[in-house]
Amino acid sequence: MKIAVGVFPQFTALDAIGPYEVLAKLPNAGVDAEVLLCAARQGDVIDENGLLHFNVAHTFDDVPEPDIILVPGGLITRKLIRDSDPIIDWIRAAHPHTTYTTSVCTGALLLAAAGLLDGLRATTHWRAYDVLSSYGAEPTEQRVVHEGKILTAAGVSAGIDLALTLVGHIAGPEIAQGIQLAIEYDPRPPFDAGTPSKAPAEISQRVEAVMAAAEDRLLRTT
Amino acid sequence: MKIAVGVFPQFTALDAIGPYEVLAKLPNAGVDAEVLLCAARQGDVIDENGLLHFNVAHTFDDVPEPDIILVPGGLITRKLIRDSDPIIDWIRAAHPHTTYTTSVCTGALLLAAAGLLDGLRATTHWRAYDVLSSYGAEPTEQRVVHEGKILTAAGVSAGIDLALTLVGHIAGPEIAQGIQLAIEYDPRPPFDAGTPSKAPAEISQRVEAVMAAAEDRLLRTT
Repeated sequence: MKIAVGVFPQFTALDAIGPYEVLAKLPNAGVDAEVLLCAARQGDVIDENGLLHFNVAHTFDDVPEPDIILVPGGLITRKLIRDSDPIIDWIRAAHPHTTYTTSVCTGALLLAAAGLLDGLRATTHWRAYDVLSSYGAEPTEQRVVHEGKILTAAGVSAGIDLALTLVGHIAGPEIAQGIQLAIEYDPRPPFDAGTPSKAPAEISQRVEAVMAAAEDRLLRTT
Repeated sequence: MKIAVGVFPQFTALDAIGPYEVLAKLPNAGVDAEVLLCAARQGDVIDENGLLHFNVAHTFDDVPEPDIILVPGGLITRKLIRDSDPIIDWIRAAHPHTTYTTSVCTGALLLAAAGLLDGLRATTHWRAYDVLSSYGAEPTEQRVVHEGKILTAAGVSAGIDLALTLVGHIAGPEIAQGIQLAIEYDPRPPFDAGTPSKAPAEISQRVEAVMAAAEDRLLRTT
């Protein structure tokens, strides 16, 4: 089983690395699975914060028919959909061959732009529900949304929940529980502000303003 | 404020990237902080699964006096402490200058080997309590353990909880809540097997056996 994590310049690292760490444990658990990172071009791919440099070995052309696709997000996704980035063509062409097509955070916008979410329930980062709607999807406030073989996860950290859900489907709940234990995933957030409905209103407003400003800068300058 | 994430070949990617994604949001939240990845040598550092290649720009010598140290773990840490790896010297020399010295997962073994945990409560991945004890630390089954300016986190995914705790200390709870909201950290694990006390006994035994075998291979072959 080939699991392709498709990345792009300025992707959010944790969107990809959370699920990666879960999925990369499948071989040790006795599951015949190969995880690989791929991008439009080989070589240096820098993350959203501009601090991590990933040296990516595979191109999208190297993995035209993966069994599973996982697509992370990032503020830059709004530019990628505006510009019809190559990752969207890859997702569209690969999807008919997958057993699961999945996204984390605003990776869902790339699935939507590839035409995969029209008329379906899906989730994404809470700031991006409107963009999802504009592609005919029905934004759904859940941690992970299943629609047939498409799984979408909420913002950033939700990728870990998505990956464990996915492992439950492809390898069974015992393997998923084993990987959960291996990564000691028994979360204890020190605060309870992980969604707009839980965070104090003034904090939601400040975060929305900060992220909107960062996104505007990005869309203007790239 | 300089925050140095110290890595080494075969580190567990999520140990570092979970907290990284939290801490790298400090500048956008108005906090004067710079996060950087450093290693013994510049260049390619491959993760524990052998699949991710990080191109690391800074050496330990470049950041002798960071304000905050964060050290990830990995099965390889038992070899690093056996061989007195350079990261241990870096931690020992830098610690007197830090405001916080922190570890995720078996990164705590490196703090212990640097002599930082003698007589103190600390936590690590559940499989490594015995090694922590052998350095005079008191293994403590908590998600994040505070001992003065030393914070240690449990296995892998606990780094996110540690980083939000740390942000609460250095920048206040409002900033920490804002970052929690930005990464939509409202975890919903699809299973409840994240610690040995919660996982079914046969799953704990299998994971212990698989990880022990992987560790033995690593210690024999490197």
